[in-house]
Amino acid sequence: MNKRMIGYLLGVILLIEAVFMAFSGIVSVIYAESVLPFLITIAIILLVSLPFVIFKPKNTQIFAKDGFVTVAAGWILLSVFGAIPFLISGAITNPIDAFFETVSGFTTTGATIILDVESLPRGILFWRSLTHWIGGMGVLVFMLAILPSANGETMHLMRAEVPGPTKGKLVPKMRQSSLILYGIYVVMTIIQIILLVVVDVPLYDSIVTAFGTAGTGGFSVLNASIAGYNNPAAEWIIAVFMMLFGINFNIYFFILMGKIRDVFESEELRVYLSICAVATLAITIDTLKAFDSFSDGLRASFFQVTSIISTTGFSTADFNLWPSFSKSILLTLMIIGACAGSTAGGLKISRVIILFKNALNEIKHVRSPKSINVVRLNGEALSTETVRSASGYFIVYALILAFSVLLISFDALSFETNFSAVLATLNNIGPGLDIVGPMYNFSVYSYFSKIILSLDMLIGRLEIMPMMILFSTVFGKRK
Amino acid sequence: MNKRMIGYLLGVILLIEAVFMAFSGIVSVIYAESVLPFLITIAIILLVSLPFVIFKPKNTQIFAKDGFVTVAAGWILLSVFGAIPFLISGAITNPIDAFFETVSGFTTTGATIILDVESLPRGILFWRSLTHWIGGMGVLVFMLAILPSANGETMHLMRAEVPGPTKGKLVPKMRQSSLILYGIYVVMTIIQIILLVVVDVPLYDSIVTAFGTAGTGGFSVLNASIAGYNNPAAEWIIAVFMMLFGINFNIYFFILMGKIRDVFESEELRVYLSICAVATLAITIDTLKAFDSFSDGLRASFFQVTSIISTTGFSTADFNLWPSFSKSILLTLMIIGACAGSTAGGLKISRVIILFKNALNEIKHVRSPKSINVVRLNGEALSTETVRSASGYFIVYALILAFSVLLISFDALSFETNFSAVLATLNNIGPGLDIVGPMYNFSVYSYFSKIILSLDMLIGRLEIMPMMILFSTVFGKRK
Repeated sequence: MNKRMIGYLLGVILLIEAVFMAFSGIVSVIYAESVLPFLITIAIILLVSLPFVIFKPKNTQIFAKDGFVTVAAGWILLSVFGAIPFLISGAITNPIDAFFETVSGFTTTGATIILDVESLPRGILFWRSLTHWIGGMGVLVFMLAILPSANGETMHLMRAEVPGPTKGKLVPKMRQSSLILYGIYVVMTIIQIILLVVVDVPLYDSIVTAFGTAGTGGFSVLNASIAGYNNPAAEWIIAVFMMLFGINFNIYFFILMGKIRDVFESEELRVYLSICAVATLAITIDTLKAFDSFSDGLRASFFQVTSIISTTGFSTADFNLWPSFSKSILLTLMIIGACAGSTAGGLKISRVIILFKNALNEIKHVRSPKSINVVRLNGEALSTETVRSASGYFIVYALILAFSVLLISFDALSFETNFSAVLATLNNIGPGLDIVGPMYNFSVYSYFSKIILSLDMLIGRLEIMPMMILFSTVFGKRK
Repeated sequence: MNKRMIGYLLGVILLIEAVFMAFSGIVSVIYAESVLPFLITIAIILLVSLPFVIFKPKNTQIFAKDGFVTVAAGWILLSVFGAIPFLISGAITNPIDAFFETVSGFTTTGATIILDVESLPRGILFWRSLTHWIGGMGVLVFMLAILPSANGETMHLMRAEVPGPTKGKLVPKMRQSSLILYGIYVVMTIIQIILLVVVDVPLYDSIVTAFGTAGTGGFSVLNASIAGYNNPAAEWIIAVFMMLFGINFNIYFFILMGKIRDVFESEELRVYLSICAVATLAITIDTLKAFDSFSDGLRASFFQVTSIISTTGFSTADFNLWPSFSKSILLTLMIIGACAGSTAGGLKISRVIILFKNALNEIKHVRSPKSINVVRLNGEALSTETVRSASGYFIVYALILAFSVLLISFDALSFETNFSAVLATLNNIGPGLDIVGPMYNFSVYSYFSKIILSLDMLIGRLEIMPMMILFSTVFGKRK
């Protein structure tokens, strides 16, 4: 392990966090709130990280394992330091609660332990939503975009942070790939802010809501989430953007390059849009009685489907009260998640496609043992390595799911609550069902459970491996 | 496909069923009950199956696919004809209910739709429990034991019916293997009957309870299940035998052969016994307050752990009322199940071990990409084929689980009820949680859901593949 280089990279990550915090400080100034929480935290970050950053190590080479360790440790540090403003401002009084809330922000989960969001300072809420936006695209991808030294080896970092079963660079140069991704991300966020302002959502609310949508996070500045705006046009806009941010960003790159053919050939995109359509239709029909008009029902269903499948977690209705069938569909969407290479969580559509096709192949194989069945995605044959790793991913995912449910069930809440709480955090969605449903929050859990759920959020956002490698490096046997 | 040979085999399976039914008729005679339900059914079976059996086909060769189709179709036919006595006697009035109950019997699930078991005739209840005993070891294994023609090709049949990730014959000759397995099964059942009689359980109850234990089924002839006997000694005996019937029968063969070393080397056995011990201890501590004395708590915990992990489903306590942590442990045990090659359901310990080790290997592989990691069981390296098929199995299992929960949630019962109902049927356990908990039953579900759950029981008992192959053969595209 190249410890010096890892230290350097972690230092840079924290400095980037300090810059983002400065923006939140400006918001505090605008609303005449105390800017001290941010100033003190920035000072602490400078004190801690500068010694690691001042002298760049001569040997910048890092290997896959270093990349995973950097990413995992980086996200934990981001959350630890990101939690400080909440504590200093008194918005959250307990360190574990503050850590939970910040992890929930950076991992774009959106699960909250704050009972009365509306009573908090605007600067603090801006920081809370900004963590979604930073976490959505990934702070390391951002670092790669601005670091002049980004070279081939830094691919390891991107591989560890960008979700999905297969990873590719858009263009040969790492740095350019990162810049393009962030460019698309920024432009789409700005478009959403403008559209929300047009339909009369206040500017501040438009910005933080767009942060929550772009990162597929789900923190809102109203206690009633998006329902609090009582604005059907805004709900449609947010629903459509939640769906858009769940699409693989490569698709937007293809559109920019005029490669429309590649867009239509994307199997993942077709499946994603089909699932959205079918789920919306099924839930609209199933919940018809609960709404005054068909359009109200359709809007609420479409909003909830895009919110859950994109793992955002905004809400306009209390789906806890919906029929069991609709709830089961939503739970299924929670597990599936959106496209690889988007800002969303979950297993990812492409991984589900691979698992499904592989399962069909198993059956074909027994029927005619001599046939050789290859799993294809977008018409191209996948390597057995990719298929094997998708299977492995799913199995580890299920083990972590089961183990987490077991651990948090010490709190004696209902099985529905516990199971959906783990699903909601491991898939970075936010609200679950029952006690952790859209109209409640995670404050009911013990600190022990909050730590477990925080780890689940990190494991889910970084797609398991980086956290596992970090654990096995820290706690593993020394050889 | 060798259709004539499949027809012949199916005919033989039904004739075997008729013989077992005759025994139940004798019980009816002893208790002076109407023997008509059995006589009529036997007549129907003879009428249907004799044309297929009289002339043995010249070409007896069958391939893997034929084996799977025979096993799947055989189990469905067994259940269809096995349901007839319930209907004729009036014990169950609806055909779908009767099919559900019989599938539940043969698959050794033990989920019931009968509200008042104690009001039914003794002969009918004897048949109900006998289906467990037949289904436990498998009717095709029985056929192999008695058919003089059992040759190498019939291995396909055993492969499709005996659970577990790897299958081996005990001795080179198929027929001898089957005979040895059934010999052990019969002797252990008789020992249990004798022990139960010794501790003052009536003979009839001892026999049917031993059937339910040996097949890891769980049908009881008392409404309150084993709790109704109020007999601590009997509870201990049943608990120990539930644990014993969850052990791979190869282990008993090794003991008979004096190969004690092989017994101690079995990793699956060690893990199985450890899980039983740890789970019992954890639940005893967690439920301590609910019991008058430590020994009462220990007995209830041990009974429930062995009942669930062996997928039997007998109950002495209403674990619905236990703390969440204990319930979560029981749900986990439901999924894991007992050893491969036993009469139990679930994923099977050895498959879980393979999945777990494979997951660890994935992490090791990322840490040091050049290392080659082989999954070992009992110290021996497994083929990649075995590991791949264990992964594939788990993924299809999870897909079926999710899809079944979705389908039965039309009935608007709680998520805990639906999720545990599917777990309880897919893993052939019997009772689930909440509305389908140990003190309730499955009569609340609609007929549509009962058909889904019946299919889940068959899919679970035959370990997915045979049912999938049958479906794809019947509904698949003709090429």
